[in-house]
Amino acid sequence: MPRPNIVLDASPDRPLILITNDDGIDANGIAALAAALDGLGTLAIVAPTVEQSAVGHAITIRDPVRAHPWPFELGERELWARAVTGTPADCVKLACQKLLPRFPDLVVSGINQGPNTAVNVIYSGTVSAATEATILGVPAIAMSLCSWDPEADFEAAGRYACLLAERVLNDGLTPGTLLNVNVPSGDISEIRGMEITRQARARWEEEFHERRDPFDRPYYWLGGEFINLDEGRDTDLAAIEAGYVSVTPLHCDLTAYDEIESLAAWVEAGVTKA
Amino acid sequence: MPRPNIVLDASPDRPLILITNDDGIDANGIAALAAALDGLGTLAIVAPTVEQSAVGHAITIRDPVRAHPWPFELGERELWARAVTGTPADCVKLACQKLLPRFPDLVVSGINQGPNTAVNVIYSGTVSAATEATILGVPAIAMSLCSWDPEADFEAAGRYACLLAERVLNDGLTPGTLLNVNVPSGDISEIRGMEITRQARARWEEEFHERRDPFDRPYYWLGGEFINLDEGRDTDLAAIEAGYVSVTPLHCDLTAYDEIESLAAWVEAGVTKA
Repeated sequence: MPRPNIVLDASPDRPLILITNDDGIDANGIAALAAALDGLGTLAIVAPTVEQSAVGHAITIRDPVRAHPWPFELGERELWARAVTGTPADCVKLACQKLLPRFPDLVVSGINQGPNTAVNVIYSGTVSAATEATILGVPAIAMSLCSWDPEADFEAAGRYACLLAERVLNDGLTPGTLLNVNVPSGDISEIRGMEITRQARARWEEEFHERRDPFDRPYYWLGGEFINLDEGRDTDLAAIEAGYVSVTPLHCDLTAYDEIESLAAWVEAGVTKA
Repeated sequence: MPRPNIVLDASPDRPLILITNDDGIDANGIAALAAALDGLGTLAIVAPTVEQSAVGHAITIRDPVRAHPWPFELGERELWARAVTGTPADCVKLACQKLLPRFPDLVVSGINQGPNTAVNVIYSGTVSAATEATILGVPAIAMSLCSWDPEADFEAAGRYACLLAERVLNDGLTPGTLLNVNVPSGDISEIRGMEITRQARARWEEEFHERRDPFDRPYYWLGGEFINLDEGRDTDLAAIEAGYVSVTPLHCDLTAYDEIESLAAWVEAGVTKA
């Protein structure tokens, strides 16, 4: 559908903030995020046309992507917005490299419905959007609310998003680092503050439900239970459990540095040449 | 197509090795990998029906997946094989939790065509399959050959896969760690050995090609150039450049531990409550 031509004011004297998500451009969470960040700078919305949960850090390289102008209202105004036929990481790449007149000063992804804690970080489209920004050299925040309730109250998540976005716009982040923020569900008055955390060790106790289609052919559907393996009080899961907003600094260097030495011993032992 | 009912011998006195990839079950690389690992144990193949490159750590949660018995020949024999309508991470989850009679002793993913080095690790389906195994507690190796040539020679990659698989079956890996292996292209005689490396810092200088479809509507196609930002001799990129097989230990804890202290200063400065 053709939209009125909204002009994006990307003048350098106001921060340019790119907002994206993985629940899709029409999700409640991204509307709440835009409302919360309004006033901090110029907002630009570039988000997937449809839900992209659990896409991890997928990018679209075998197919083209499209970017459709999209109606995105904030009170009486309409924001500059594009719906992209791709993943959250695609949205950030395309926005930064093609759609925006300049690189944004900040990327905020969310507000996701459901936590992105512990091992779920690696499956998360919300986090991958922020990671992509980090790779491109743009400071980024991933925001998640620990509630799947369609009527969830985004007030607390919005307020903390604003607080952190303002801080990051002022102070920056160490290059290569992003903030992964998880906000407990419930009323803002119940939140005890913010804690800096690490990613908890956890795993999924998975169960594939085997079912039969109308032609009696089997299919499988992934379900399962989340298991926290980490008793530390300094983890993302523990902070949320205790009623705090969890802020975890993440990076995209996956090297297990602790292992380099023991593996080097293999090489010294002569296991080096096939 | 109905296949002869191949029985999988998963008796505990032989190692059970799950082989998967992201190039699809009919790719040359997975055939080469199966041939290389034959003799180390019982091989089971569970791989995507079609190419899944750059899917990152995507998993399929909104849709069911199917697993089709598949013809997978190794010399005169036919191996137990399933083609899964999902991502590499789906393949590993489904194989371990449903299709195999027991958890495998080792998962090897590949042999991918094209390197999975530096930041490409986070986009890689090959690596994500190995990561998924690690999360499930199974030692895992991701194998990539630095060549996109359809006629590429897999001999060296196969030999190093066998060497490393044997070592991992004997010694295990630290829980939570996987090996990301990249093999230089070319003849095995030219390979100088193996080096234990870290993930290089790098990024893509991306370019979206804007084109017009037959209806004159714009679409975008991702292209770009890979930029190494890391001059260290201890990186994956440097090892390959110098003619060595690169072995990088990876983990899935993305916490940027170095940043925890400086962010804690924010909290101490009172930026804790919205």
